[in-house]
Amino acid sequence: MAGHLVVLSGGLDSTVCMALAAEETGTPPLALTFDYGQRHRTELDRAAGVAGHYGAEHLVVRLDTSAWGGSALTDGSIDVPDAGSSDGIPVTYVPARNSIFLAVALGVAEARGLDAVWIGVNAIDYSGYPDCRPEFIEAFRGVAATGQKRGVEGDPIALRTPLIECTKSQIVRLGIEHGAPLHLTWSCYRGGEYPCGTCDACVLRARGFDGAGIADPALT
Amino acid sequence: MAGHLVVLSGGLDSTVCMALAAEETGTPPLALTFDYGQRHRTELDRAAGVAGHYGAEHLVVRLDTSAWGGSALTDGSIDVPDAGSSDGIPVTYVPARNSIFLAVALGVAEARGLDAVWIGVNAIDYSGYPDCRPEFIEAFRGVAATGQKRGVEGDPIALRTPLIECTKSQIVRLGIEHGAPLHLTWSCYRGGEYPCGTCDACVLRARGFDGAGIADPALT
Repeated sequence: MAGHLVVLSGGLDSTVCMALAAEETGTPPLALTFDYGQRHRTELDRAAGVAGHYGAEHLVVRLDTSAWGGSALTDGSIDVPDAGSSDGIPVTYVPARNSIFLAVALGVAEARGLDAVWIGVNAIDYSGYPDCRPEFIEAFRGVAATGQKRGVEGDPIALRTPLIECTKSQIVRLGIEHGAPLHLTWSCYRGGEYPCGTCDACVLRARGFDGAGIADPALT
Repeated sequence: MAGHLVVLSGGLDSTVCMALAAEETGTPPLALTFDYGQRHRTELDRAAGVAGHYGAEHLVVRLDTSAWGGSALTDGSIDVPDAGSSDGIPVTYVPARNSIFLAVALGVAEARGLDAVWIGVNAIDYSGYPDCRPEFIEAFRGVAATGQKRGVEGDPIALRTPLIECTKSQIVRLGIEHGAPLHLTWSCYRGGEYPCGTCDACVLRARGFDGAGIADPALT
């Protein structure tokens, strides 16, 4: 079996993906992290820690999306709101973020001869981003099938999204069952030294651990 | 009418796209160029020249794909072959290049409130890259429709490919008719001071000008 690639942010979901991919393939997946100008830069160190935990090669790709702006996560002049403070797609949405991540991941995977790209998107307990939903992933499978040498000459690189229909509590439980190093992960959108506890990412994470009946090991 | 974005490499096809987009919208489109570690870096200066010709804002996004390799265009250890020296998809194919370009272009267009992304892909007189074909573009339209706030809340950003079924001679003629500054363009894949005349890009370009009965103004 050729190797796999995991898009690793250093958050809860991508770290559980890393655990599942490592277990399935029996070898450390290639961990791919994006330095996209995010204000929560702590997650870059967390991603390195998770990759190190698995003895995985860690490729950090820099693409400064703050150069064109449009998101509270990359534009210091837009505040990160507290959870529940607005309807619809929130200002923390980063235009085309997962399209960019998946396109680069498919390129890296093809160049390295890897068979699958794993991404921890989730469309249940999530912030409402359109690029976390099954229909988006399905569209991207079409891109892998039609736009790559791999897809044209043989089987396309597979897009694996094992968490897409899980609740956050189920993701926490999966992580525990599969030995994911959840104590190393970071979810908070804000750039502070400690998780703020009130942004969407913090609130979803807390609900996940509460629902699973487990204390968050990153807070202890 | 809101503005448009043109993916501008500084080559013949993207420059003709720039001419068509500028004429249709009546305002300078945003020109987006990628510095992806290509060996033919001359095209970055040419792109700047074309953008300047139209009085367009020129955004250069750096993403060093040579970090993962896999292509003669970004890996100095793989030679650029002469035209016709191999069958199938050539070694100058850059894994997922147009997926990456389009994903970033859709992100920039959304952040800037633009309505369309133009790209000069061509599936007739081309190097056989899968990410230049209509089925790939169609798949990416699905990405724009499902993965972006713009596509979910209203009309997706349009992907415009006016040259996709043109011959290279037709593209040359279109460029002349619409006043494209063809003398500023660069096509050669090799990194020399002058076009090599023998790589796939040079040969396709020469055939295009020959077929149109026009001398290549970049060579005079």
